[in-house]
Amino acid sequence: MFQEYDVIVVGAGHAGCEAAAAAANMGSNVLLVTMNLQTIAQMSCNPAMGGIAKGQIVREIDALGGYSGIVSDASMIQFRMLNRSKGPAMWSPRSQNDRMLFSQKWREMLEETERVDFYQDMVKALIVENGKVKGVITGLGHEIKAKAVVLTNGTFLNGVIHIGEKRFGGGRVAERAAEGLTEQLVSLGFQSDRLKTGTPPRVDGRSLDYSKMEEQRGDEIIGGFSYLDVEKPKTQRSCWITYTSTEVHDILKTGFDRSPMYTGRIEGTGPRYCPSIEDKVNRFAERDRHQLFVEPEGWNTVEIYVNGFSTSLPEEVQYEALKKVPGFEKVRFFRPGYAIEYDFFPPTQLQYSLETKEVENLFFAGQINGTTGYEEAACQGIMAGINAHLKTRNEKPFILKRSEAYIGVLIDDLISKGTQEPYRMFTSRAEFRTLLRQDNADLRLTEMSYRMGLASQERMDKVIQKKQDVEAIKEKMGTTSLEPTEVNPFFESINSAAIMEKQKVEKIILRPNVSLDQMRSKVNTIDQLLNGYSAESIEQAEIQVKYQVYIDKEKDLVDRMKQLEDLEIPEQFDYKRIVALGAEAREKLLRVRPRTLGQASRISGINPSDVQILMVFMGR
Amino acid sequence: MFQEYDVIVVGAGHAGCEAAAAAANMGSNVLLVTMNLQTIAQMSCNPAMGGIAKGQIVREIDALGGYSGIVSDASMIQFRMLNRSKGPAMWSPRSQNDRMLFSQKWREMLEETERVDFYQDMVKALIVENGKVKGVITGLGHEIKAKAVVLTNGTFLNGVIHIGEKRFGGGRVAERAAEGLTEQLVSLGFQSDRLKTGTPPRVDGRSLDYSKMEEQRGDEIIGGFSYLDVEKPKTQRSCWITYTSTEVHDILKTGFDRSPMYTGRIEGTGPRYCPSIEDKVNRFAERDRHQLFVEPEGWNTVEIYVNGFSTSLPEEVQYEALKKVPGFEKVRFFRPGYAIEYDFFPPTQLQYSLETKEVENLFFAGQINGTTGYEEAACQGIMAGINAHLKTRNEKPFILKRSEAYIGVLIDDLISKGTQEPYRMFTSRAEFRTLLRQDNADLRLTEMSYRMGLASQERMDKVIQKKQDVEAIKEKMGTTSLEPTEVNPFFESINSAAIMEKQKVEKIILRPNVSLDQMRSKVNTIDQLLNGYSAESIEQAEIQVKYQVYIDKEKDLVDRMKQLEDLEIPEQFDYKRIVALGAEAREKLLRVRPRTLGQASRISGINPSDVQILMVFMGR
Ligand SMILES: Cc1cc2nc3c(=O)[nH]c(=O)nc-3n(C[C@H](O)[C@H](O)[C@H](O)COP(=O)(O)OP(=O)(O)OC[C@H]3O[C@@H](n4cnc5c(N)ncnc54)[C@H](O)[C@@H]3O)c2cc1C
Ligand SMILES: Cc1cc2nc3c(=O)[nH]c(=O)nc-3n(C[C@H](O)[C@H](O)[C@H](O)COP(=O)(O)OP(=O)(O)OC[C@H]3O[C@@H](n4cnc5c(N)ncnc54)[C@H](O)[C@@H]3O)c2cc1C
Repeated sequence: MFQEYDVIVVGAGHAGCEAAAAAANMGSNVLLVTMNLQTIAQMSCNPAMGGIAKGQIVREIDALGGYSGIVSDASMIQFRMLNRSKGPAMWSPRSQNDRMLFSQKWREMLEETERVDFYQDMVKALIVENGKVKGVITGLGHEIKAKAVVLTNGTFLNGVIHIGEKRFGGGRVAERAAEGLTEQLVSLGFQSDRLKTGTPPRVDGRSLDYSKMEEQRGDEIIGGFSYLDVEKPKTQRSCWITYTSTEVHDILKTGFDRSPMYTGRIEGTGPRYCPSIEDKVNRFAERDRHQLFVEPEGWNTVEIYVNGFSTSLPEEVQYEALKKVPGFEKVRFFRPGYAIEYDFFPPTQLQYSLETKEVENLFFAGQINGTTGYEEAACQGIMAGINAHLKTRNEKPFILKRSEAYIGVLIDDLISKGTQEPYRMFTSRAEFRTLLRQDNADLRLTEMSYRMGLASQERMDKVIQKKQDVEAIKEKMGTTSLEPTEVNPFFESINSAAIMEKQKVEKIILRPNVSLDQMRSKVNTIDQLLNGYSAESIEQAEIQVKYQVYIDKEKDLVDRMKQLEDLEIPEQFDYKRIVALGAEAREKLLRVRPRTLGQASRISGINPSDVQILMVFMGR
Repeated sequence: MFQEYDVIVVGAGHAGCEAAAAAANMGSNVLLVTMNLQTIAQMSCNPAMGGIAKGQIVREIDALGGYSGIVSDASMIQFRMLNRSKGPAMWSPRSQNDRMLFSQKWREMLEETERVDFYQDMVKALIVENGKVKGVITGLGHEIKAKAVVLTNGTFLNGVIHIGEKRFGGGRVAERAAEGLTEQLVSLGFQSDRLKTGTPPRVDGRSLDYSKMEEQRGDEIIGGFSYLDVEKPKTQRSCWITYTSTEVHDILKTGFDRSPMYTGRIEGTGPRYCPSIEDKVNRFAERDRHQLFVEPEGWNTVEIYVNGFSTSLPEEVQYEALKKVPGFEKVRFFRPGYAIEYDFFPPTQLQYSLETKEVENLFFAGQINGTTGYEEAACQGIMAGINAHLKTRNEKPFILKRSEAYIGVLIDDLISKGTQEPYRMFTSRAEFRTLLRQDNADLRLTEMSYRMGLASQERMDKVIQKKQDVEAIKEKMGTTSLEPTEVNPFFESINSAAIMEKQKVEKIILRPNVSLDQMRSKVNTIDQLLNGYSAESIEQAEIQVKYQVYIDKEKDLVDRMKQLEDLEIPEQFDYKRIVALGAEAREKLLRVRPRTLGQASRISGINPSDVQILMVFMGR
């Protein structure tokens, strides 16, 4: 009853949805098989997208023609550009979302995508012949054929949920776990391991006293993730900030002896950078409080997500502790926090295209690769979808470099280093973060995607226009000078030194506290110069001019790193004789035996000085 | 971590939601415990509310101050008043609904209801002491205390899903079954049994060819269920009609040997009046086609519900057969149809208040009582919620008579007759259906509810106004006469006989093809007479005048039945000596030993002539 598909995507989480959309938009016939068609793109944990480094990823997905940005924009209840006070490399868009609307919007967009078919069932096994995947077998017994398969099972593979001493099977609370697949993959030669993650309690907003918390409003100007024009909400909902205390911590500690984390019942490693509240209390014993973000789950619901209070302690302990948090004195629970343990496949078993080394035409994306987070999952999804499509057409894989995108960093990290704990993205993981800004993801990526037939003409046209405008503005900034009489009153108003003779705009803009937008309202020439250009293009031109030095430096570094990449290390290179290397570095190099200096430099535990030492010994 | 509640409602299906709302609105502190807070008021089967007899029930729920009518109105994508061409006793409102919006709206309304708290967990057991329920115990181990408990577990108790030869546990597809409760109740002395129901496949609307089907549009004027003013949609979505054929039936038959129905794997009895397609093919072998309604699942989804094709045949058989239905040649499945078997508790174990006889303060409502259908569940829910509240206040139960509401008929049927198969409502079950119209549920019920503190002042005020207006209109119809010159042109236009001398409006309106609305546009006096009154009041007055004879007759019957109710049958009454009684009647009377002639008359298998015979022998 099923046609042979080009690509079957298993699982309609964030990874699976992007994979299905990408492959279909490139021309593949796609079947999206998922256990429950009513939980498409469910946000399992916090109702928010983006944030530091993650926001950049969503912008990149959007620039490539993915849907996450559009869906996030269409379902946001609050928008903030984080780190506005820092340099533009750190600006990170973040939205608070209506959980139901997010899922609904994803489903609508997928339904409107030609060539995406849907089927509700659990995939129990793969059809594999001669080391090649040929399709899937479902719980109902269907054999569905396909040229390529993308697995995006998230936290569902043999998922086990823990709350205090209670444990039960499930892929998310109130949803079943997926069985069968891990066992088959292991029998095919894959290595699998366990990880865990957790989620905080959901509570009744009507039981909270907001007067005891700090309000956190959205930005005055509502930005977004998509480079297309998605309609933004007219109003926003606020979040609230409150804090734990030593009293709260003391109560939490009374549950430690029944915590699945400390009694050894959970074997999987949890996300170090998104720790449970008990982890925080334990690891940062010196801190007498931790921040909690009190986040609404949507436009029209009283349900509240207690961000920062992820926990798998016994429920009474969760409750008694939370009650001591200012504003939560009368809290009522909708449901407790819990931890979930699940199977993942160490990602060193993948190629850069996200195709598995073991089985041809089989791709993995998302949490199954040991990552955590919607954005991390979604960006792997789009890459796996693209590459599954390309593979079925016998075309070269699409691989992003570390210097081209956070997505490149993420995949390179996973594949070359693997991960011992749920991997999430940070700006610090990207050595070229001045290049990988949220404002230029379209300039970096849309054309590549357009050439492959993914990004639409509309996107491409917008990028071309933006590029032209940015060049034109920069050109004008380099040729227009301002007279002291014209600009000094403005300088005075912002307490900046006056000028004595005329100065080019591109010079003036280098002053740290000067922005085009600000100047525009005071200096007529600037207003004329910018007239007719979009805010986006103006901002882009300004960033390029203002940060040119840093950008150039990083571009340089990219070139030098590229050379490292070309420097092959002899196969029998004798690390032992290099006394200057630290013991850890020597051991890792011996184990991994990197092919190039570039690869060596990315091994975790190898730092720049180790690389320089190697360089010297290789005679450079 | 939980306060002691007045009422705990277990399960947030249609019954549970109404129960929680009713008890809370009357002043109880209510906790609604349900397995998944994201599936509140999920429509398990067809995305539609109302229909024949069921539409009347929704109107009654609304008149009592329940939420089902408001939610249905707010989420409708199509509205039709069925049976418009018949008498007003048969008019039945029906809406096609957006499945997601329906659930979302219910959740929003409950969240906005003061005194309803929520908790996500599975109830595993009841706390029962000395024959009284004291609370519930959840899967996570919480003991939550309450003065009364309402169980509304729907199809979840030990639910088993069947598709062809496959079977697995679940309360709905992709949801878990609920365990523990049945076993405990049985150990407490309850009798339980199995029933089954089924659902058709959901398909991809993009794969259908609508040009081969008949379009079924909504009514021009969008009506609704609620007596309050709920905003209605501006547009509607169409449904489509198509048919099976002998070819389709032949394919279906090829699967019969693997059907769980015929291989004996399903023991529970299915709904005779909502049969699966295989049942229809089997039982109505003479019919060479069955009608299918092709119904959209919402505003913005391509998912389609194939109404009339409920089945648990193997999926390939479902698929091959459906492909032969005109318009379905290229059908793609979203998910197959399936049957579900579940535990229910024969409702003869209940009192009229829906409190169980076995355990005090424990109430049952919905599918757990052997009914099927959202409306049947919801109306039991509101009654159980009301009575649970009243019980905790030591007040007399609220019981509706058969002559007062379909709800009264339903509960009386369940309690006095029990049910061997899933019970659904029909107009034919109501002996007083001329009284129990959809147009007068507010006049029948709102005041009773208002007096108990449930229906709001707003509802009551509307009813008072409506009553006054109706009386005023009727009064005017009785005092206003039309001159031949004025009304004859109108009669001519509708091919009705002219009058020779002036006639009262109340007389004219008795003509079968004459309506006030129609006359209004042609006859000035009528327009003036009706000026300033709502369409609803005008319609009501017209119905009362037009059908007065029938209404009076039925009121008479009510009175006579009431007398039957007062006629007690002597305890040792010797049925054997009454030869005139049929064998079946005698046997049943001997078994049930009814207390009154009224009760005797309602035993299934006892017909009016049997009652008359009894009357004679009792000396009347
Ligand atoms: C309890 C919990 C807490 C979390 N906490 C955090 C956090 O604090 N911070 C953070 O960044 N991230 C957190 N996450 C992770 C985040 O939810 C995931 O990273 C993200 O959802 C992964 O996306 P995915 O597409 O890989 O998988 P998922 O979103 O899990 O989607 C998997 C999909 O595949 C389907 N599926 C699985 N197996 C099968 C099968 N065999 N056949 C058919 N369909 C199948 C499932 O039904 C589901 O639709 C948490 C997740 C959970 C469950
Ligand atoms: C497959 C299927 C086909 C159907 N077909 C038809 C049809 O053709 N025609 C028709 O009229 N009706 C049909 N129905 C019936 C209709 O769906 C039900 O009559 C109606 O939904 C019953 O409402 P309810 O409130 O009694 O229970 P449900 O709507 O089933 O709701 C029960 C609720 O209780 C919760 N719950 C159950 N046990 C527990 C527990 N122990 N602890 C906490 N929560 C619990 C569940 O999660 C759920 O939210 C069908 C139902 C199913 C599942």
